[in-house]
Amino acid sequence: MASIFTKIINGEIPCYKVAENDDFIAFLDVNPNTPGHTLVVPKREVNKLFELDKDTYNGLMSFSRKIAIAMEKAINCERIGMSVIGLEVPHVHVHLIPLQSMADIQFQKKVSLSKDEFEQVVKDIASKL
Amino acid sequence: MASIFTKIINGEIPCYKVAENDDFIAFLDVNPNTPGHTLVVPKREVNKLFELDKDTYNGLMSFSRKIAIAMEKAINCERIGMSVIGLEVPHVHVHLIPLQSMADIQFQKKVSLSKDEFEQVVKDIASKL
Repeated sequence: MASIFTKIINGEIPCYKVAENDDFIAFLDVNPNTPGHTLVVPKREVNKLFELDKDTYNGLMSFSRKIAIAMEKAINCERIGMSVIGLEVPHVHVHLIPLQSMADIQFQKKVSLSKDEFEQVVKDIASKL
Repeated sequence: MASIFTKIINGEIPCYKVAENDDFIAFLDVNPNTPGHTLVVPKREVNKLFELDKDTYNGLMSFSRKIAIAMEKAINCERIGMSVIGLEVPHVHVHLIPLQSMADIQFQKKVSLSKDEFEQVVKDIASKL
């Protein structure tokens, strides 16, 4: 069965898209740790980060860097944290999370944003890309 | 003042070294989330991941991949998680953490290992490199 991220990539489930190229897509996490929390996903569905072939892994990391640098300019935060876990959705995804404290990257505290707020964050990040 | 990681790199503080090249070093975290928890550090002291120049960032990610693939072979775990936070030590470090559950990457639960256990983990990972 296709992962939830493959459904997003195929347009079956909507997303707040930040950026996309032939191989990767970045969109906002709809259950964010902090405002701006973004997921970067390879379009080909692979379970584990270190199962990706070398070129796809390097491409994913490069693409994540571009997004993170734009996030750092667009969002008021101490820095952008990066985390790859993947125990819940078996499709590689890089979390890019605007951080003020350790708690922001522990995936326990969540924030709610309205549709307008999500759309504004997308615009803010995209304007720095 | 030199960071604790620069002191490790310079040999002023000992470490359980997993691997090293001209630009990067990997050693065990002495206050690990789980056995095998490894830090990968660029030898040049830079505070934030996304302040690294492109080549150093890409090199760090490639080197981390090699270490993680060896860890995945050497250590009994569900997968290797990766996290870059950096709020505590202002010198870029990639956490590579053998995971069984989300709690293993929340930096709240810690495990104690003896010197012999640390040394055995280093041998186990190095044997898969």
